[in-house]
This record gives sequence, C-alpha cells and structure tokens, in this order.
Amino acid sequence: MTARSSSAFNEATEVPEVVVERLPQYVRALTRLSQQGVAVVSSQQLGDLIQVTPAQIRKDLSYFGRFGKQGRGYSVKYLLGELRRILGLDREWRVGLIGVGRLGRAILSYPGFAPEGFKIVAAFDADPRQVGQMVAGIMVQPMHRLGEAVHELGIGIAIVAVPASQVQEVVDQLVACDVRAIVNYAPVTAQVPSLVRVRNIDPVMALQSMTYYLTTPQGSTRTGGK
Amino acid sequence: MTARSSSAFNEATEVPEVVVERLPQYVRALTRLSQQGVAVVSSQQLGDLIQVTPAQIRKDLSYFGRFGKQGRGYSVKYLLGELRRILGLDREWRVGLIGVGRLGRAILSYPGFAPEGFKIVAAFDADPRQVGQMVAGIMVQPMHRLGEAVHELGIGIAIVAVPASQVQEVVDQLVACDVRAIVNYAPVTAQVPSLVRVRNIDPVMALQSMTYYLTTPQGSTRTGGK
Repeated sequence: MTARSSSAFNEATEVPEVVVERLPQYVRALTRLSQQGVAVVSSQQLGDLIQVTPAQIRKDLSYFGRFGKQGRGYSVKYLLGELRRILGLDREWRVGLIGVGRLGRAILSYPGFAPEGFKIVAAFDADPRQVGQMVAGIMVQPMHRLGEAVHELGIGIAIVAVPASQVQEVVDQLVACDVRAIVNYAPVTAQVPSLVRVRNIDPVMALQSMTYYLTTPQGSTRTGGK
Repeated sequence: MTARSSSAFNEATEVPEVVVERLPQYVRALTRLSQQGVAVVSSQQLGDLIQVTPAQIRKDLSYFGRFGKQGRGYSVKYLLGELRRILGLDREWRVGLIGVGRLGRAILSYPGFAPEGFKIVAAFDADPRQVGQMVAGIMVQPMHRLGEAVHELGIGIAIVAVPASQVQEVVDQLVACDVRAIVNYAPVTAQVPSLVRVRNIDPVMALQSMTYYLTTPQGSTRTGGK
C-alpha cells in the first residue's frame, strides 16, 4: 500500500488505506474547531465530534507520528496543519474532469472544490458537440488532448463523469497519462494497476446507512439489547 | 466515505448518526467473513479488517445491544443477521430514481443495487422527451406522477440524479410525497426537514483521501527512504 519514507515517520509502518480514508474526517472536525476558536482538543473531545473512541484516534494518529503530550491534548492548529500536510492538502491540486454531460457540468460549476484546494483546470469529452464549448470558464477539449494537457497543466487527479460503459476506457487513458488518483461517479468498478487509486462513489453504502431511520421509529431507542 | 450526511448528529435519536453510517462497513466485512466460512470473529479480528480498534467496535455495537460473550468473540452469522436487521437490510427497499439523464441511466442499469435489496421500481424525469422511454426495463414517468407512484409502489427511498439547479425543487417534491431517505448525486446540499435523511455524494472527501498517495512516495517509486 504505502510507506512513509521521511525520517519524521516510522519507515516500517504501512498505513492501512482505511486509516487514510478516515483522516479527512479528522481534518473536517479540526477545521470546525479551529473556526470556533478552540485552541486545544483532547482525544476524548475530538472523538465525541466524530464518534470515535479516544483510543482509536490515538491509534490512527500514531501511524504518522506524535502530535500531543500525554494528558495535555492536541493543539488544534498544529494537528490540523500536520494532517493537512500529511494528506497533501497544504497545496493546490490540479484536477481534470472527463465527461461534460449533465453531471460533469454540475461538477464544473460546483463551488466546493476550489476552497479545498482542488482546482479543475481542464475538461474533456469524447463527444465532438461538447468540444470547444465553454463551461464554467473552462473550454471542453477533445479526449486526444488528454495526455498533453495532463503534462502541460500538471493535472494529478481526474474526476470521471462519463457513462458506465465508457468508464474503463477513460480510466485506461488516464492511467496511460500517469494520472494516479481518480474519482469515478459511474456505478461501475474500473480495473487499475496497484499504484493507481480510484474512489468510486458508493451509493449502496449511502443507502444502507439510511434504511436504519426508515426501520427505526424516530425517537425510539434501542432495537437490540435484551 | 463517499457520502456525507446532512447533519452529523440527530438529537432525537439515541444512536449518533456517524455510528449508523459506519455500520454498513461492518456489514460488508462480516459478509466477506461469512462467505469465507468464518464462524466466529473477535473484535480484534473484525477491527483488523476495517482498521478500527476492538474498543471502538464494542462501543459502536453497544448502542444496539449485546452481541458477543466476553472473550468468546462474535458469531459472524448472528452478528451479521442482527446488523442487517437493525439497518433494515433484511427486507427489500423500493427505490425511485429522479432524473434519467446520462447518470440516471447508468444508475438504472447498475447491477449492484438489487443484490443488496435496493430495487429501483420507478423512474421520473421533468423532460417530456424522456417520459415514456424504457430504460433498463423501467418506463420513465413524468414528475407529476411522483406522489401517486410513491404510494402505489411503496417507494421509501429516492435517488436524485438531476442537475444541481433542480435538486432543491425535486427534493421538496419528494419530501411532500413522504419520501424520507434521499441520495443526492449533484454537488449541492438540499434543505430538508429534520426527519428526512439526505446522503450527498461527497467528492471532496474522496479527493482528500487520495492526495496522501500522491504526496507520499510508495511502492516501486519509494526512493526517498534513506
């Protein structure tokens, strides 16, 4: 999976991917605390925010170093800064969008990416009718421009918003252009080499976390515990 | 990970929403164990699978009752069955899809919902050109049929795949029809009453969990370790 090689970290430790996937939640909670002017947070308090035990928080963070002194809590600003640095969120990432259909257009217009450091700098579509159009200030380019644009613009991440039937082909093209991080919106799983990360939007998990509320009368309590 | 809830915590219910949101991960891990023929799992082993401490697992599960005997582990089959029952996954859910554009069509054709108990039984679109078309065996209906169809077909959940600009209007219509669980694919947040759950597809969190790998040398490219 991955290994830190900086001397600040334990070189032998591979960080499990599920731990990496949790860190953005920590960043979100710490950002909120920081905005509220909170200077120091205990693992208990941080855990309450994201409903994780203090031990879990300490274990997750231990993969990356030591961030607090026993019994004194974490400096919100320092921990947030370190986690952002570790996750690579302290810089701007240039993102390419593939597929400028309805969803792609909504993604291009979404105001939530740029403040988080993800700047969509190029858009591509296989449909000649889309090519040349301006969408949210970006001109749609043909797919054959992908490789050149990725290298010229320093695109490190792609968002794929093409129909399911086209996903594997598009992902293959991205991989061939050295793009190693892909968010895929279509409900299919693409095959990629092990060095490439794909995050599929997973609607089943989203559905599975809501049926609880349809099953459990609101305000009623435990459903198990005898 | 890919979906975020509209509120982190609902005070009306005893179980924190973030705990409910984690349970599908438990279900997925237990399903895998069950398929492998594993009969009993300790909280340590289960925790290893999803990289959660044993204490966290015990705490999460304690909201719902007692599922194992101290020192004897959990019966995989029993715990899986109970969690599926608690989450309401032991029945079929009828799902309505709103928006039959490119994304909506991909969702209708996705083979991953039905095996998990989510059956898309109706599709709706505001565009008269879509209405009457058959997509993946389902005839697209006009939006004014929504209320009737929801009640006739027992639709409890909606998947919204409309352009961002139409999301709030569609969500309002769904809420008016008593749909209380909505997955929204567009990158905007809809306002809903507190009894309604919305899971937004959250591309920022997905992006934030990948930049780690772009920042950190890994695998064969791991040349930085001195």
